Amino acid sequence: MSALPVSQPFNVNDPVFRAHEGGKLGVHATSPLRDAEDLALLYTPGVAEVSRAIAADSALAARYTSRRNTVAVVSDGTAVLGLGAIGPLAAMPVMEGKAVLFKHFADVDAVPVCLETGTVDEIVDAVARMAPTYGGINLEDISAPRCFEIERRLKERLDIPVFHDDQHGTAIVALAALYNAAKVVDKRLADLTVVVSGAGAAGVAVSSILVRAGVGDVIVADSSGIIGPDRVGLPDHKESLRNTTNRAGRVGLLGDALEGSDVYIGVSGGTVPERDLVRMAPRAIIFALANPDPEVHPTIAHRFAEVVATGRSDFPNQINNVLAFPGIFRGALDSGARAITEQMKLAAARAIADLVDEPAADLVVPSVFDDRVAKRVAEAVSSLADHCG
Amino acid sequence: MSALPVSQPFNVNDPVFRAHEGGKLGVHATSPLRDAEDLALLYTPGVAEVSRAIAADSALAARYTSRRNTVAVVSDGTAVLGLGAIGPLAAMPVMEGKAVLFKHFADVDAVPVCLETGTVDEIVDAVARMAPTYGGINLEDISAPRCFEIERRLKERLDIPVFHDDQHGTAIVALAALYNAAKVVDKRLADLTVVVSGAGAAGVAVSSILVRAGVGDVIVADSSGIIGPDRVGLPDHKESLRNTTNRAGRVGLLGDALEGSDVYIGVSGGTVPERDLVRMAPRAIIFALANPDPEVHPTIAHRFAEVVATGRSDFPNQINNVLAFPGIFRGALDSGARAITEQMKLAAARAIADLVDEPAADLVVPSVFDDRVAKRVAEAVSSLADHCG
Repeated sequence: MSALPVSQPFNVNDPVFRAHEGGKLGVHATSPLRDAEDLALLYTPGVAEVSRAIAADSALAARYTSRRNTVAVVSDGTAVLGLGAIGPLAAMPVMEGKAVLFKHFADVDAVPVCLETGTVDEIVDAVARMAPTYGGINLEDISAPRCFEIERRLKERLDIPVFHDDQHGTAIVALAALYNAAKVVDKRLADLTVVVSGAGAAGVAVSSILVRAGVGDVIVADSSGIIGPDRVGLPDHKESLRNTTNRAGRVGLLGDALEGSDVYIGVSGGTVPERDLVRMAPRAIIFALANPDPEVHPTIAHRFAEVVATGRSDFPNQINNVLAFPGIFRGALDSGARAITEQMKLAAARAIADLVDEPAADLVVPSVFDDRVAKRVAEAVSSLADHCG
Repeated sequence: MSALPVSQPFNVNDPVFRAHEGGKLGVHATSPLRDAEDLALLYTPGVAEVSRAIAADSALAARYTSRRNTVAVVSDGTAVLGLGAIGPLAAMPVMEGKAVLFKHFADVDAVPVCLETGTVDEIVDAVARMAPTYGGINLEDISAPRCFEIERRLKERLDIPVFHDDQHGTAIVALAALYNAAKVVDKRLADLTVVVSGAGAAGVAVSSILVRAGVGDVIVADSSGIIGPDRVGLPDHKESLRNTTNRAGRVGLLGDALEGSDVYIGVSGGTVPERDLVRMAPRAIIFALANPDPEVHPTIAHRFAEVVATGRSDFPNQINNVLAFPGIFRGALDSGARAITEQMKLAAARAIADLVDEPAADLVVPSVFDDRVAKRVAEAVSSLADHCG
């Protein structure tokens, strides 16, 4: 299944393994089961009346079943963290961890669903078939470009929110950070030239949200260089980027993209050499989001940029999806939204940014433990549900 | 979707609806998430080490993921209780209720999975694809004869226990009750002639387990009468019954089957007339298991039988699947059994029967609230896992 190099035997006494002993999730009943009377309410014969009511009016499922507050965290294990295609069993700890975050930050009951991988058709069919169980679908760690079509088709087919977090969670938080970083360096969003390094799930979504947010120009570079007018025979998702980014029609390599640019956003997992970063404009911004190894170490990045952010918790400005996804789904579930719209994503980014009262070079996003975040994001999403859901 | 007659508008203040408000299940984290350090253990970067370990040795998933203790309660909503094909949304309260029972009686973390129905192929593919997530699959309320092939094919395909409770749960508890009822009427199992009325999911499984348990003869009747040598063109599951039951080669209607028989087991949902019951042997046994309306009211049944059991909690001798399925899965999960074997089912039935110290006409099965039951059933299943799993 995997070409993953296994570094060394693991230590069962390592705190990480101890924290995972027996798994990280449990299920509990929300009503007491004490005696035969409770049994008759929660199960037969009582339950039959609830089933009859839902059969007559399916909207009642949102009130009388756990669907109301349950999100499936769905992966096929094909692009797990930076580990690659490690398969559904090995993806389980990550999806369980995600479910822990959903519960902790937004009281969403999330359950992992790890699927044997297959064709796009097979994954779409499997998820669509189980969808009646859930109030929302969080897609996770599915390889590009399959993830784009899987999400698109599920959104078309289902009347519950479908959200690929690797794309949109990253995009929302990156935009939130950029709103505040632009203030710090005293530049207008509409004047920024942003270089996005990477055209996978995160790169595509970050680029798209920046264009919609009104960034001056976005230039995307993949491993072959700038996605520009000279690139032909591109797959759909890159062709789409070619048509919506790079207004100036630049060609060349990453260094050519960075020439005079204001912002570098790394979502590639590679590294960016100093000789390229030195070409950036004054008062630059660097978001090096590869995890656990940023494309450029923050200490070095500061030589070239005034604001530096990473995905790591041990440096300032941690750009972490957990600022977005719990509140996104909380808001969608509370409002009965049938989809997470583009407007909702922009509003969520704004809500996150606005939680920083006085943006500074080392403070462009709130802490992941700021317990106002999920609530504000949920409100932003909810408020748009009537209009866009 | 459904031809279900909706009797009347429901009352939101009815205790049943109040008990279902917001659904009956929640998810919780089993480890504390207090700070950045916990976050780094339960999610990135720590979780990556656990994923790497499982990628290298998939057996570790049983130790370090929630798969260890999680069972999916899977239905497509095609045969829910006595309500018929009410669909996956309306099936949710029943599957949640089942999950509540799993937790309460055996500390199994069960989650509902309600599927849009489809062909046998489609249901098998969907369940097989999500199987890496779970330690076992409890199939529930899937219409016959589809349920037989769906279970058979999933058992072939998966290396975790797959158990269709409407079949085997009912069969195990009915056999347990029969062990003790036979003692009460002082007859040997090998001398009994048992008539099973109904050849759906429960009827097929009850008949099969009785044959394997060594009952003298089993005669099955469906709506067309006795399944015997004169019946031709039968579907597979009834053809199989024709070959394994009715040694005496009886033909005719239900009343002809009951002539001189020792036991009537109703799993048909219809009614059995007194003129048929009067033909039974002296010291007869009647299990009228249709719920909530037994095939014959217990008061009337007692005119024709010494031991009477039903599925109802308001009469003695409640034959309830909950005596079996929690312990069955507890034992399978604890022992790492890859299947629930026929031997395990027989052992489970014996364990349930043995919990009644002194069987009597009104005491052939333990109470559903007897907290020894799941433990003993689990032990019976576990003890066979090495040999048969």
